Amino acid sequence: MASIVELLTLNNPVFKSYVFWTGVLVLKMLFMSVLTAMQRFKTKTFANPEDLLSPKLKVKFDDPNVERVRRAHRNDLENIVPFLIIGLLYTLTNPSAFLAINLFRAVGIARIVHTLVYAVVVIPQPARALSFFVAAGATVYMAFQVMVTAAF
Amino acid sequence: MASIVELLTLNNPVFKSYVFWTGVLVLKMLFMSVLTAMQRFKTKTFANPEDLLSPKLKVKFDDPNVERVRRAHRNDLENIVPFLIIGLLYTLTNPSAFLAINLFRAVGIARIVHTLVYAVVVIPQPARALSFFVAAGATVYMAFQVMVTAAF
Amino acid sequence: MASIVELLTLNNPVFKSYVFWTGVLVLKMLFMSVLTAMQRFKTKTFANPEDLLSPKLKVKFDDPNVERVRRAHRNDLENIVPFLIIGLLYTLTNPSAFLAINLFRAVGIARIVHTLVYAVVVIPQPARALSFFVAAGATVYMAFQVMVTAAF
Repeated sequence: MASIVELLTLNNPVFKSYVFWTGVLVLKMLFMSVLTAMQRFKTKTFANPEDLLSPKLKVKFDDPNVERVRRAHRNDLENIVPFLIIGLLYTLTNPSAFLAINLFRAVGIARIVHTLVYAVVVIPQPARALSFFVAAGATVYMAFQVMVTAAF
Repeated sequence: MASIVELLTLNNPVFKSYVFWTGVLVLKMLFMSVLTAMQRFKTKTFANPEDLLSPKLKVKFDDPNVERVRRAHRNDLENIVPFLIIGLLYTLTNPSAFLAINLFRAVGIARIVHTLVYAVVVIPQPARALSFFVAAGATVYMAFQVMVTAAF
Repeated sequence: MASIVELLTLNNPVFKSYVFWTGVLVLKMLFMSVLTAMQRFKTKTFANPEDLLSPKLKVKFDDPNVERVRRAHRNDLENIVPFLIIGLLYTLTNPSAFLAINLFRAVGIARIVHTLVYAVVVIPQPARALSFFVAAGATVYMAFQVMVTAAF
């Protein structure tokens, strides 16, 4: 393991790429709240009595458009968050720059595509499954490398 | 970018503030499980057959008090977790201490207020919306700075 | 606080243990998606129209086996993710190696047991409650130490 001083600096292209994609993916994840709010107002689907815009409305939990965006958001929590943590530790294992940067790119682009085909314009399968597996596969590979590096 | 040795130390007031608020917000998030359990026992709403306290009870998924706390908890996952990751990288961009410390304070206080007005004592809107936007706005700003710092 | 150079290296047994258990727990979390998919195919429970395998099927949201795995997965997000973040900062507080390594082990093993008794072979309570409290207790202790270290 190289010294942390050389690894955790923007002079290290792997760390630079990790930082860039973390910024992009956090912004993307936070944008899911905007998408959810847009669907809630469009379909007048609010989950709390204090959110109702008119006394005639009632709380509603089963609008398919709202629930679709919420499932996409939850899928981000399940997949992007583990990547963000493991990506940092993977950077500390001093991997090949070429491989690491392309893994980060693959996860970043695949998770943006996942959101687009799931919650923006619904595209038939296997669009969503493919984008899911690209990101999950890259994250599993990195987590495995991290675990093995620390185990021996 | 200053050296990691000067940034990731409690002598750096920005990192010290980040560490403090991370501790506070993680404790706050874990406390949501206590709040959920309290509501589950109070309303006898259990989601698993093996959790039922008496053979007369049945699993239930729609108690409004339990669901309210669960929504607040999920909102924490969607907003606090991205902040915790981006706050660390933002610290590494060597920001103005005054700005960074006040951003961390804003997120920390806003998310505590969010929980109070959502899941402890329900306060009419826009209390929850405001606390949500303060924290989300600060996190978006930091994520944008992180992304831009790494992009050039 | 010792220098980051001595703390964030695999020569530090505390960091080595943290990295190992992070790898294990991220792989375990990602495996929840496999478990969910297995239950979805077994019970033909799909949440999106584009996922339906046959035109005779309809979207379904209430299969108890699918929902059980999804609750276990969500519980991981609520508990493992905060641990992963606080475990890194706890490592930076330069704790006793004996204590820290056993705390990480406790969380790692407890969360694996939690998944087994919740979503693989259902075991009567208090199996799940105990595994939950071991991991949550260790995480609360570490978060408290982190907060106090940064507060003074």
